[in-house]
Amino acid sequence: MDLYSGYINKLIEELGSLPGIGSKSAQRLAFHLINLPGPKVERLAKAILDAKENVRYCKECFTLTDQDICPVCANEKRDHSTIMVVENTRDLAAYEKTGKYQGVYHVLHGAISPMLGIGPHDIKLKELMQRLEQSRVEEVIIATNSSLEGETTAMYISKLIKPTGVKVTRIASGVPVGGDLEYIDEVTLLRALEGRTEL
Amino acid sequence: MDLYSGYINKLIEELGSLPGIGSKSAQRLAFHLINLPGPKVERLAKAILDAKENVRYCKECFTLTDQDICPVCANEKRDHSTIMVVENTRDLAAYEKTGKYQGVYHVLHGAISPMLGIGPHDIKLKELMQRLEQSRVEEVIIATNSSLEGETTAMYISKLIKPTGVKVTRIASGVPVGGDLEYIDEVTLLRALEGRTEL
Repeated sequence: MDLYSGYINKLIEELGSLPGIGSKSAQRLAFHLINLPGPKVERLAKAILDAKENVRYCKECFTLTDQDICPVCANEKRDHSTIMVVENTRDLAAYEKTGKYQGVYHVLHGAISPMLGIGPHDIKLKELMQRLEQSRVEEVIIATNSSLEGETTAMYISKLIKPTGVKVTRIASGVPVGGDLEYIDEVTLLRALEGRTEL
Repeated sequence: MDLYSGYINKLIEELGSLPGIGSKSAQRLAFHLINLPGPKVERLAKAILDAKENVRYCKECFTLTDQDICPVCANEKRDHSTIMVVENTRDLAAYEKTGKYQGVYHVLHGAISPMLGIGPHDIKLKELMQRLEQSRVEEVIIATNSSLEGETTAMYISKLIKPTGVKVTRIASGVPVGGDLEYIDEVTLLRALEGRTEL
């Protein structure tokens, strides 16, 4: 049943196909957009098209950027012998936000997931190995998520890199800062126990 | 600190200014859009611009539509002597979805809210009164929300219409179907009690 007119339905449909936007949210957003001033709407549509058109992979680390080489890779002051491997550009941004990491990154754009049919060839792993061959890398820090897919990917990468002699490390897994033990799941509690360090 | 490149930041900013989309969702959406195939992205941008450009108020009931007169108002089979007053086009769609209401609508585009500085002149009330003057209306059903603003608006409209002799009714307020009394707030329970009907 068509509750709304054609253009409204079309917009609701397009918005509803985005992740995390259900049919109610899509309706709310559509009417919000229709009620916005014209120039604001044009700005949004332009931002979408511009980003799609201009954003590409950094030739070094494969993060999404609008330059050939992203600002992190282009920065001579960063330690190019330490590479942190992350699943996506948002994870890179999360570590950049800490302002403490001085090395560079490698963005996989995914994680190995047999469930979803994503294998080692579907993520930027070959490109990581090429970087290790072509430049002097001392340490690869694997910062994939602490999920099943992230852990699988971490194991796979570590097995791939170890024969090359490059040091491979994994970010720690444990109780988040400020986390109340009472509300933390058992697997995390055991991880935190295993990963305990001397004081 | 600019975590992302210009075009990505711009897109995140535009998306984040929409209702119900926080900064994390905006980031997730932005990367989703960038990773979508080009034609799909263009379809979305076009849907936004098309809707903004073509959608306007129905000249009769002021719902949002892409025609001069919306399909409900244009339908000769509907009962044009009964007008249901709703706050917005989504509320109209909610009643249309029931498929049982045979009358027509009047969309206020808001509700009276002294808190938000929205007065009777900021919603399509004058237009409702003009309709009552110009055509033979027998009943006005006030279906504004059961919120403070909705109730205020209902009271205001009823006082405005009563002198004209047109019958004014208000949709019932009570326990929702399938609602468990245990989890229903006290005000609703009292409303349901007051509005009890004989079996």
